[in-house]
Amino acid sequence: MLGRTSWAIPEGYIPGWSHGPEPEMESHETACLLNAGDEEAKVEITVYFDDREPAGPYELTVPPRRTKHVRFNELRDPEPIPRDADYASVIRSSVPIVVQHTRLDSRQAENAVLSTIAYPGWDGRE
Amino acid sequence: MLGRTSWAIPEGYIPGWSHGPEPEMESHETACLLNAGDEEAKVEITVYFDDREPAGPYELTVPPRRTKHVRFNELRDPEPIPRDADYASVIRSSVPIVVQHTRLDSRQAENAVLSTIAYPGWDGRE
Amino acid sequence: MLGRTSWAIPEGYIPGWSHGPEPEMESHETACLLNAGDEEAKVEITVYFDDREPAGPYELTVPPRRTKHVRFNELRDPEPIPRDADYASVIRSSVPIVVQHTRLDSRQAENAVLSTIAYPGWDGRE
Amino acid sequence: MLGRTSWAIPEGYIPGWSHGPEPEMESHETACLLNAGDEEAKVEITVYFDDREPAGPYELTVPPRRTKHVRFNELRDPEPIPRDADYASVIRSSVPIVVQHTRLDSRQAENAVLSTIAYPGWDGRE
Repeated sequence: MLGRTSWAIPEGYIPGWSHGPEPEMESHETACLLNAGDEEAKVEITVYFDDREPAGPYELTVPPRRTKHVRFNELRDPEPIPRDADYASVIRSSVPIVVQHTRLDSRQAENAVLSTIAYPGWDGRE
Repeated sequence: MLGRTSWAIPEGYIPGWSHGPEPEMESHETACLLNAGDEEAKVEITVYFDDREPAGPYELTVPPRRTKHVRFNELRDPEPIPRDADYASVIRSSVPIVVQHTRLDSRQAENAVLSTIAYPGWDGRE
Repeated sequence: MLGRTSWAIPEGYIPGWSHGPEPEMESHETACLLNAGDEEAKVEITVYFDDREPAGPYELTVPPRRTKHVRFNELRDPEPIPRDADYASVIRSSVPIVVQHTRLDSRQAENAVLSTIAYPGWDGRE
Repeated sequence: MLGRTSWAIPEGYIPGWSHGPEPEMESHETACLLNAGDEEAKVEITVYFDDREPAGPYELTVPPRRTKHVRFNELRDPEPIPRDADYASVIRSSVPIVVQHTRLDSRQAENAVLSTIAYPGWDGRE
């Protein structure tokens, strides 16, 4: 059982504009989810802000033995995430998954990218 | 209780100049704090240097269910952090939080960004 | 015994084109493996996708006291990894190793790089 | 006691050339060490390659309550680290420290940066 059932990404920011051909070069913030197990993962994402109550949960599933790279700027239900605003996220899953955070910032002529494994919460199982 | 009460960021460096429209494109170093719990977090940041005793603590709070993205170049009390100098930081909180470190470097025409989850200290609770 | 025997990298993406002199500036995704121990590491990489069953295992060895920086775009057996497609990977080793993930994206005129220590699975030994 | 006494950085690469004013814009690979404790840290760095036995140890100290940002391209004793070659490193300390890895790549006109907290080895103390 590789992974954990809760993850946190304190950094969140969707740039307000992009530069270059879309969709590859569109500015985006991504949570990469890996479900290496044999059961479907039911995932809930909660989004935190600095000036209001959290949004969500945003619900999705990751089939067994699959990865899903979720773009925050494509989340719509229950509400889109505002551009040019600070946010953070917590990701909870029904089965252990692994989460990595990546951002492509194409506001200027050349891309900038960042990435980090998200913070794995403790769920008593490791 | 997602997170830890002590965190370390050994990398710290505020570039001395920027390129592009401010404040979005101003060079900055950020500690992104997420308080996903239901109690206010009282946070103290201590800043370490290579040639003098530490500065701080810088005090701030993060309300319950909120994120705060703290720019080191905006810290003023008890003293501003010097530009173009190496530093490191330790972040302690009254309740578990999660910390991520990000830097935007806009000294040249195009941005460069980096990010990593900070190092979570052990507080006997996990 | 420094390291773990299972690692995960949820982010995977090999850009479809490059800019600049090859091979240094060719876009690539790398898993950097460090075997700091005194026994050869037999390593198996499994690659996960969003729309099909996993590929692999890709097999390789890292001699004792050596590092090996594996470019995903050079993996050929049992099959090459597609360009411009999301993937993720799990790395298992016969002895403890340490894994770091790095990407050089040279699709535009200037490079962008990202890196993170991979997620260390629990193997009951730490 | 914040930190660990052994750390690993599997990614290492010093670009062979730079672009921009030195020393700020010189390409470099850095291990940022934070000693937040009250005892001097005696540190040994061992460097691993893909085709020869390890180099080192490189010895240095970090005073109590200080940070030291070590550039691998400035290590000279017992031998300099080759340019344009893959390497990895293990950092051991007499007291707990925290280590972060950063690279500035200025081979092309604009900078690229990456950073990650290094992998913390287990030393029975956490």
